[in-house]
Amino acid sequence: MTELEKSMESLITVFHHYAKEGGNKTTLSKKELKKLIETELPNFLKAQKNPDTVECIIKDLDQNKDDELDFEEFVPFVAGLTIACEKHYPLHHQKKGKK
Amino acid sequence: MTELEKSMESLITVFHHYAKEGGNKTTLSKKELKKLIETELPNFLKAQKNPDTVECIIKDLDQNKDDELDFEEFVPFVAGLTIACEKHYPLHHQKKGKK
Repeated sequence: MTELEKSMESLITVFHHYAKEGGNKTTLSKKELKKLIETELPNFLKAQKNPDTVECIIKDLDQNKDDELDFEEFVPFVAGLTIACEKHYPLHHQKKGKK
Repeated sequence: MTELEKSMESLITVFHHYAKEGGNKTTLSKKELKKLIETELPNFLKAQKNPDTVECIIKDLDQNKDDELDFEEFVPFVAGLTIACEKHYPLHHQKKGKK
């Protein structure tokens, strides 16, 4: 498998690892999303001032209003974060190159 | 780094690996996108009947019409593919579990 394929597969397996815990096995409840974020993106929540961040994320992404996130609703969250991270990539990458 | 963080970073590093080759170092030209897809997603192009698939992808995703894909324009392509792959995940995952 290529690096990009592994990256795509990881996104799927991480989602299902947390989705399968309670209730609906293929969606993330608020509790499961919170656990995923706390475990997989430990710095993300800490950096948020709003204590209701997880609630806001679900509200923004939950297209079918079932208070859960299916995979298609979850991906834009990770895509948005990755795009934000990439904005720091060129600078970080050049600095590393200078040593 | 967590699995999700690695997956996000891989997406960034794979993009920049191909973007840095020619002309604009932070965008994918048609040639660079084609090389990325052929190398990182070998089965994807083979499965396409349309020989102009790469052209269509750029046309669909190139928001600022510069004939190049920056990272923000590239991510929806990978996100869409990952969502399509995930549709096969539950079935594949259950079959694996049955052995």
